[in-house]
Amino acid sequence: MPAPAYEALEARFRRLALLGDASGLLAWDRATIMPKGGADVRTEQLTELGLIRHELITDRALADLLDEAEDGSDTLDAWQRANLSAMRRSWRHANAVPAALYEASTRAGLACEMAWREARPANDFAGLRPLLEEVVRLTRETADAKGDAFDCAPYDALLDQFEPGLRMAEIDPVFEDLAAFLPDFVEDVLAHQASEPAVLPLTGPFPIEQQARLADTMMHTVGFPSDHGRLDVSHHPFSGGTPDDLRITTRYDEADFTSSLMAVLHETGHALYEHNLPARWRHQPVGDALGMAVHESQSLLIEMQVCRSRPFIAYAAPVMRAAFDHDGADAAWQPENLQRHYTRVSRGLIRVDADEVTYPAHVILRYRLERRLISGDLKVSELPAAWAAEMKDLVGIVPPDDRDGCLQDIHWMDGAFGYFPTYTLGAIMAAQLYEAAKRADTNIEPSIGRGDFKPLYAWLNENVHNLGSSLTASEMLSRATGHELDVGAFKSHLKARYLN
Amino acid sequence: MPAPAYEALEARFRRLALLGDASGLLAWDRATIMPKGGADVRTEQLTELGLIRHELITDRALADLLDEAEDGSDTLDAWQRANLSAMRRSWRHANAVPAALYEASTRAGLACEMAWREARPANDFAGLRPLLEEVVRLTRETADAKGDAFDCAPYDALLDQFEPGLRMAEIDPVFEDLAAFLPDFVEDVLAHQASEPAVLPLTGPFPIEQQARLADTMMHTVGFPSDHGRLDVSHHPFSGGTPDDLRITTRYDEADFTSSLMAVLHETGHALYEHNLPARWRHQPVGDALGMAVHESQSLLIEMQVCRSRPFIAYAAPVMRAAFDHDGADAAWQPENLQRHYTRVSRGLIRVDADEVTYPAHVILRYRLERRLISGDLKVSELPAAWAAEMKDLVGIVPPDDRDGCLQDIHWMDGAFGYFPTYTLGAIMAAQLYEAAKRADTNIEPSIGRGDFKPLYAWLNENVHNLGSSLTASEMLSRATGHELDVGAFKSHLKARYLN
Repeated sequence: MPAPAYEALEARFRRLALLGDASGLLAWDRATIMPKGGADVRTEQLTELGLIRHELITDRALADLLDEAEDGSDTLDAWQRANLSAMRRSWRHANAVPAALYEASTRAGLACEMAWREARPANDFAGLRPLLEEVVRLTRETADAKGDAFDCAPYDALLDQFEPGLRMAEIDPVFEDLAAFLPDFVEDVLAHQASEPAVLPLTGPFPIEQQARLADTMMHTVGFPSDHGRLDVSHHPFSGGTPDDLRITTRYDEADFTSSLMAVLHETGHALYEHNLPARWRHQPVGDALGMAVHESQSLLIEMQVCRSRPFIAYAAPVMRAAFDHDGADAAWQPENLQRHYTRVSRGLIRVDADEVTYPAHVILRYRLERRLISGDLKVSELPAAWAAEMKDLVGIVPPDDRDGCLQDIHWMDGAFGYFPTYTLGAIMAAQLYEAAKRADTNIEPSIGRGDFKPLYAWLNENVHNLGSSLTASEMLSRATGHELDVGAFKSHLKARYLN
Repeated sequence: MPAPAYEALEARFRRLALLGDASGLLAWDRATIMPKGGADVRTEQLTELGLIRHELITDRALADLLDEAEDGSDTLDAWQRANLSAMRRSWRHANAVPAALYEASTRAGLACEMAWREARPANDFAGLRPLLEEVVRLTRETADAKGDAFDCAPYDALLDQFEPGLRMAEIDPVFEDLAAFLPDFVEDVLAHQASEPAVLPLTGPFPIEQQARLADTMMHTVGFPSDHGRLDVSHHPFSGGTPDDLRITTRYDEADFTSSLMAVLHETGHALYEHNLPARWRHQPVGDALGMAVHESQSLLIEMQVCRSRPFIAYAAPVMRAAFDHDGADAAWQPENLQRHYTRVSRGLIRVDADEVTYPAHVILRYRLERRLISGDLKVSELPAAWAAEMKDLVGIVPPDDRDGCLQDIHWMDGAFGYFPTYTLGAIMAAQLYEAAKRADTNIEPSIGRGDFKPLYAWLNENVHNLGSSLTASEMLSRATGHELDVGAFKSHLKARYLN
């Protein structure tokens, strides 16, 4: 029987999680359906809920309970011990930072983000600079404090916020490998693509109502549980809500249904990870998803590995045609052509518009720059020039202005340094996991070709979802695939898809 | 300058209010758009938020601050003093009830409400009885405890939960007057109605999309601020959200647009009261609306006094016709006939379907019975028979079964005893306030006839909304109308509308 201290901690972390749920719903509502005039009071509500959570996790009594529970941890089973250690990690992140610094950072992030919404369209880096400098300054202070608490480098401590245990030492070899591989590979892919038949345009308009019906059909094909979630519209697609009340979003463009649909499938991947987390551990840290890299691996596995694959598109093509009443004989709507739409590669300036092949270059660029910003090796004022240099090196093109350069992303404005790498780590893990899944059950890929995701999810549930946070990402990967993080499967996947 | 104790109280009550906002949004979401499978976790979230609020308001330190602030209240201005006294009232309600009793009541109410959802359609009073008995038993304990705290009768303390300061002594003369007046009056109205031309049917269907557009037009005519609210669909219409993010709901019936539209206007009345509360006092008890009776007076003033009046219907008739592409020459769509639809009187079994004339009888019945249930004078087992007797006496008809008798309302199932009277008190106040408003500004009624609600809202804002809870309902009524609660205006209104 677990010690009373541990039981008391479960009660406290359950409260934290339920408050987190409430904040999550308020944020979802703000991003989807809230009337404009509700923004100010919503900020007050969210700030107060955040403050209450901060008070709960920095409460002296909670620290004492953690000490006591750790002393008596030999009475705990493996999940409870993992839960206790996830609690400690969460405690460390919150308690490493003095309240005044936490508040100043939040405020600086909000101010910079607000200003950025105007500065980006106005291409006004100079105007934004002082605000971003303040964000960087306070983030460096935070990183120093957390580095001390976790006994690691400051930037490593920022990475740990988004993916527990992730360190530069794990990222560097993988990103160096990719940075060396990609420039030539992109050349090869573009040459190969040029030798292929031209992509036939899909002619719209595609009425939003029909798109929404198709999205609904397809997300349910993947396995989205209709009783436990909704699809709505927001400015940027995201996945919110809770494991039993999944709130995913997309946005529609009447001229093009393909990217909206793929966003829905991407978010469905996120949502199903949440939905399949261990029910016994709801509202406990060990029952949570692993970090953002693993989360992204689940969305990219569905989007990139599966839904842009030949077998799935062969299955989906007639469904898409039917959704828009298109003719089965129309060449543009044949699987071959749809697959070309969904695997088109080009060098672009904008990360969120990038394809699967060039995307890692955008991420590596940001990783390189944000490390240097945090170490103090790069000044905010030097960012535009450094951005251009890295773009030239990694993507092969240079942005004509900051709007489509270093002003394009919200992350840094908000103080979210250490987040970017998780996108590409997620892509690498997705390839690694899908390769292992297909090896473990040879029925998975043929089933996908029939629109049957059950065998895939049986494997994912057992090897990823049901584990919650009871293992680290590395342990989970080793157990599921036989290797720790390994870029091999990702590169093989890219070669197979883009050079064949 | 107010004492530090008072300032500290403002901070604590602000937190309580913001947590209340969060609960409100979660409850709105549950009632409108939440997927079914989210119900269990939503209950957990709402329960935990309620528990946190209960802990905050029963915190010993808060009690000390109240004592201290009251001792130094001579440094406070009138609003601050009113705020302090609203805080004390709220504290009394929460602290009168032992935590175990509070929890047991909540649980019993939930269990009974859940069972009621099945028992009502199954007409199974016997099956529900033990659960309702438990609710009544625990509510009586609560009423006793609160009666001690407020030094009043137990049932008075229940009334006070819903309308501060409301007591049986204020209700009794008014309800006795109405109970004596109504039976003969209803006879007269029905006879008068029979002598009038028959009501011509409005022929549908009325597509939901067109109804929603009409609702949108009409709520904005009344003054609903589009940037600060939404209209959605729920099982029962209600008004939720916050003063700057109003969430009203309705339900649509393709065969009949009239009741859905009137529900929207009713909820708009509630919403505009919230929206116009004093902005300086947001998230403080004194900035809140007065109780449910005053709230209902604002919805009924808009719905019953104004929107079912001849001048407004004359204005609205062409708008309604246009919404459904009906012919201007069609006799059914002339103001006279529409007004007959909206003022049709009949003896019915169901409170929520009752018209303005018979509605008070349904309320007086419930008032009489719930008082006796709380005093112990009436047993739950005797409810069906007592219900039938009162219906015969007050409405003149007897329900054939409990489904359309004592099982029809959710209130008691939930433990909400003391709520019912507020509906009819609201109707009485609405008549009293509208009479005073028209007397004070003779331009109000002609403006309504042009769809211009500004003069009306100028008067309401000054005399009701902007006051928040700085006065009691009685003080507000006296100041605005020259009288405390007085049934005269309501009776004059009924005579003028239904016998002319």
